[in-house]
Amino acid sequence: MRVVSGPVKAVRKKAPRGNRLRARKPRGGFTLADVARAVGGRVHGDSGLRLTGVRGLEDAGPEDLSFVADVRHAGAARGSRAGAYLASPATAPERRPAVIVSEPVAALAAWLQVFRPEPRPRPGVRPGARVDRSARLGPGVAVEAGATIGPRARIGARTVIGPGAYVGADVTIGEDGRLHANAVVYDDCRIGDRCVLHAGAVVGSDGFGYVWDGARHLKIPQIGIVRVEDDVEIGANAAIDRATLGETVLGKGTKIDNLVQIGHNVVIGEHSLLCGQAGVAGSTRIGRRVTLAGQAGVADHARIGDGAIATAQSGIVTGAEVEPGTIVSGMPAAPHREFLKRSAWVARLPELARRLERLERRMGEG
Amino acid sequence: MRVVSGPVKAVRKKAPRGNRLRARKPRGGFTLADVARAVGGRVHGDSGLRLTGVRGLEDAGPEDLSFVADVRHAGAARGSRAGAYLASPATAPERRPAVIVSEPVAALAAWLQVFRPEPRPRPGVRPGARVDRSARLGPGVAVEAGATIGPRARIGARTVIGPGAYVGADVTIGEDGRLHANAVVYDDCRIGDRCVLHAGAVVGSDGFGYVWDGARHLKIPQIGIVRVEDDVEIGANAAIDRATLGETVLGKGTKIDNLVQIGHNVVIGEHSLLCGQAGVAGSTRIGRRVTLAGQAGVADHARIGDGAIATAQSGIVTGAEVEPGTIVSGMPAAPHREFLKRSAWVARLPELARRLERLERRMGEG
Amino acid sequence: MRVVSGPVKAVRKKAPRGNRLRARKPRGGFTLADVARAVGGRVHGDSGLRLTGVRGLEDAGPEDLSFVADVRHAGAARGSRAGAYLASPATAPERRPAVIVSEPVAALAAWLQVFRPEPRPRPGVRPGARVDRSARLGPGVAVEAGATIGPRARIGARTVIGPGAYVGADVTIGEDGRLHANAVVYDDCRIGDRCVLHAGAVVGSDGFGYVWDGARHLKIPQIGIVRVEDDVEIGANAAIDRATLGETVLGKGTKIDNLVQIGHNVVIGEHSLLCGQAGVAGSTRIGRRVTLAGQAGVADHARIGDGAIATAQSGIVTGAEVEPGTIVSGMPAAPHREFLKRSAWVARLPELARRLERLERRMGEG
Repeated sequence: MRVVSGPVKAVRKKAPRGNRLRARKPRGGFTLADVARAVGGRVHGDSGLRLTGVRGLEDAGPEDLSFVADVRHAGAARGSRAGAYLASPATAPERRPAVIVSEPVAALAAWLQVFRPEPRPRPGVRPGARVDRSARLGPGVAVEAGATIGPRARIGARTVIGPGAYVGADVTIGEDGRLHANAVVYDDCRIGDRCVLHAGAVVGSDGFGYVWDGARHLKIPQIGIVRVEDDVEIGANAAIDRATLGETVLGKGTKIDNLVQIGHNVVIGEHSLLCGQAGVAGSTRIGRRVTLAGQAGVADHARIGDGAIATAQSGIVTGAEVEPGTIVSGMPAAPHREFLKRSAWVARLPELARRLERLERRMGEG
Repeated sequence: MRVVSGPVKAVRKKAPRGNRLRARKPRGGFTLADVARAVGGRVHGDSGLRLTGVRGLEDAGPEDLSFVADVRHAGAARGSRAGAYLASPATAPERRPAVIVSEPVAALAAWLQVFRPEPRPRPGVRPGARVDRSARLGPGVAVEAGATIGPRARIGARTVIGPGAYVGADVTIGEDGRLHANAVVYDDCRIGDRCVLHAGAVVGSDGFGYVWDGARHLKIPQIGIVRVEDDVEIGANAAIDRATLGETVLGKGTKIDNLVQIGHNVVIGEHSLLCGQAGVAGSTRIGRRVTLAGQAGVADHARIGDGAIATAQSGIVTGAEVEPGTIVSGMPAAPHREFLKRSAWVARLPELARRLERLERRMGEG
Repeated sequence: MRVVSGPVKAVRKKAPRGNRLRARKPRGGFTLADVARAVGGRVHGDSGLRLTGVRGLEDAGPEDLSFVADVRHAGAARGSRAGAYLASPATAPERRPAVIVSEPVAALAAWLQVFRPEPRPRPGVRPGARVDRSARLGPGVAVEAGATIGPRARIGARTVIGPGAYVGADVTIGEDGRLHANAVVYDDCRIGDRCVLHAGAVVGSDGFGYVWDGARHLKIPQIGIVRVEDDVEIGANAAIDRATLGETVLGKGTKIDNLVQIGHNVVIGEHSLLCGQAGVAGSTRIGRRVTLAGQAGVADHARIGDGAIATAQSGIVTGAEVEPGTIVSGMPAAPHREFLKRSAWVARLPELARRLERLERRMGEG
């Protein structure tokens, strides 16, 4: 099956009623010159070479553009049947057509946005969508079937509210954003420009705050909000709790993967990455450009410095401070080198024990 | 931005059509006497002092009430710019206006419920909601746009079924509850009074039960239910599986955080707390007032005694028994003190290995 | 409360408008002969014995059929009050009515499908569902209230699209499948025959792919798809990302539990089991009949051989290769026996340290 196929500008001028604007199996394809122009690269070989798809090195055929991410893939590139490559001077397969760039993955990203622009529904409120009369929609906003927009909500220009999505009362969402199907934003939360919430993502649910009154857990009303800054993306079925008081903050450009949990009052800096199923407990502060790898957990009231990395499944304990730029691993999390050393020694524990026993025997203690 | 702002009783008498009943940026604020009356406290200073918001110690200004949770926050309280405090005799900052109570956090919870009561939609079935004609709705029930209520379902008085939520056939839900947007309750499940399901929470999905028949996994139909007792809260995108036969049970007053997974036939006692991303596999029994911290996992057929605590990311293995009142950590979970000792020794493993080598050298074994 | 109750064939001929076809508290029950015929077993005792329910050993009464899964439950079976048992020759309680089979759990599965067939809504498009005019629905398809089906989507015969579910543009779904409430399939994804997506499950969300351009994370458009083969079941609030290019694949007969995360470009073979909250990062390849237990994590670009098992909370690191048929545990994952040995030695570390100190003292090093 051809997954990727389409020319550069094949967008139908007039979409049939009820359809999306999108390029469907168009003819003609694109040339290496098209690619070079779009990504700011230099053609190596025939600039008129015509291709129709974009595929990975293993799957690509003579009609496909592929890409060589870095030198580790140079061997696979030589073995690929791709018609041409996005590659750096160091990784381009010899005597094969290519568009030469300094950063092949960035160029791939740029080309894919040209090659296969994300389909956007027509502007307007679809039948079956419910928009409160006091809500304000910017120009070009699309509200798809089954979506609900609450009182006094404001949706910025060109933002798409997907099918079944819910935007609560007094929510503001910026321009050029997208809520995918069944995403939910609770009352009062604020979402910046160009933010994407994937299907089922929840922003603004109550923080997990109770106080034991001797007979039951008394709920502490969670009356704060979530503030999501510009250019944030939130993955499918992720959950971001509102603050008890004040704000839970996702900083500009931060990317949150699927099924991530963010507790109340957490503040995350700009351009951080939280990978799948990571979790952050209440009131923790995470700096700029921090990475939490998959299933990593940060307990409450911790501080993670700028640029720090918590590796997969690592666990950072309550109140811990992770220094900027450090890599931590394990549970409880320790500097990554320490973790590797300890793991290696743990693997050798049976041997250490045997050596200890031998010494004991020699000293007459066995 | 002021997040929290509003007087005690500023609820609009007549909400405009399609709007919610809620207090929006009202004037006037509240006095310390109002607070003391609501929480059963004693005013220290000017009981007529007028405030408008409630904020944490760091964010509060002269127009805000703040609170001092315990003695660890006494220093931060002295440094706060708050206009007044909810505090205990031991934590109240000297010579500053305060409402003195024995339990400041419980008093905060009580005051927030007065200060900022949760907005509730008007009773009635909104346009775009679908209620089966055989379903029965109690007085004051609100069914929001896009919600679906199946045949023979019964919804107790004043319960709110949020936008896009789904209540299956033959479900019963008690009084004064709330299903937030896109929450789902499968057929036949039973939900008690005053229960809250946050957005995307799922109650009653099939348990993960298959039997290998030599060629494929044959599904074991999951024909039991989930029974959720009174006063249970279930977090965003949590998933509670129905029993194979019989019931999966969430005991009265138990609180389930976001993205928690509960397998089939699990029984959880009263007033337990399951924090974010915790998971419990099939047929495990959890006692009363148990705490599973974030990302903790309990395998199948385990038993967790009353009052036990499993710390973050701990893993309790199949069939394990955790004694009442114990704290366990690590994977496989061990008593917390053991875990701390072991972790400390693991961190010292490189040193132990060096010492062992030195002895070996001295004994001529190196 | 009786949870399970109903005769073999009590399906109402004509369901009232808006109701489901299902057997509600019917009279009469079933006989051991009915059970034996349905599961291919042999009656031990009175084949005309009449029962009304199916319950577990602990909960069953004289009117219930129960089952004895294996010899470990033989004791509980002797103590049960059940009226009759599904059991093997080795596990059948003496002198008690039983249906004797070689595989009691498979027989239970078969009987439950007869005894309590899953209710299916009437075919047709319910009011409040939105089906694009270019979509094609096979015979017997049901689209429930609030569901949305996009342009050019194709839904196979008898498949049920649940309330609030979303099927994107150009999606194909096979025959006899079911999307439960609020499940989401993004554009272009392909779902096979007899697949079940539980409530809130998301198929086809964007993979987590960015490239740092010096100032921000540039999104790499995710233009691939997810291909779900026949007989796959996906749990509540699970998330399956689409490929960057090409396909993310869930092999035939694979079962995915609640809250599982599958990254982009992952390929999973046939008949694998991924238990609750397991996670698989991008480009990892998982073989046939692999089991990932609860909360297990597999990092990117790893390979898991056929029949391998990763135990609960284990962590398989980037690029790792797990040999076919092996069982791995711990983080970083090691062969299960190694893990058990290491865990045992870690538990004895304080003792080893004491012994080392004693030797040091004797050698005059203390």
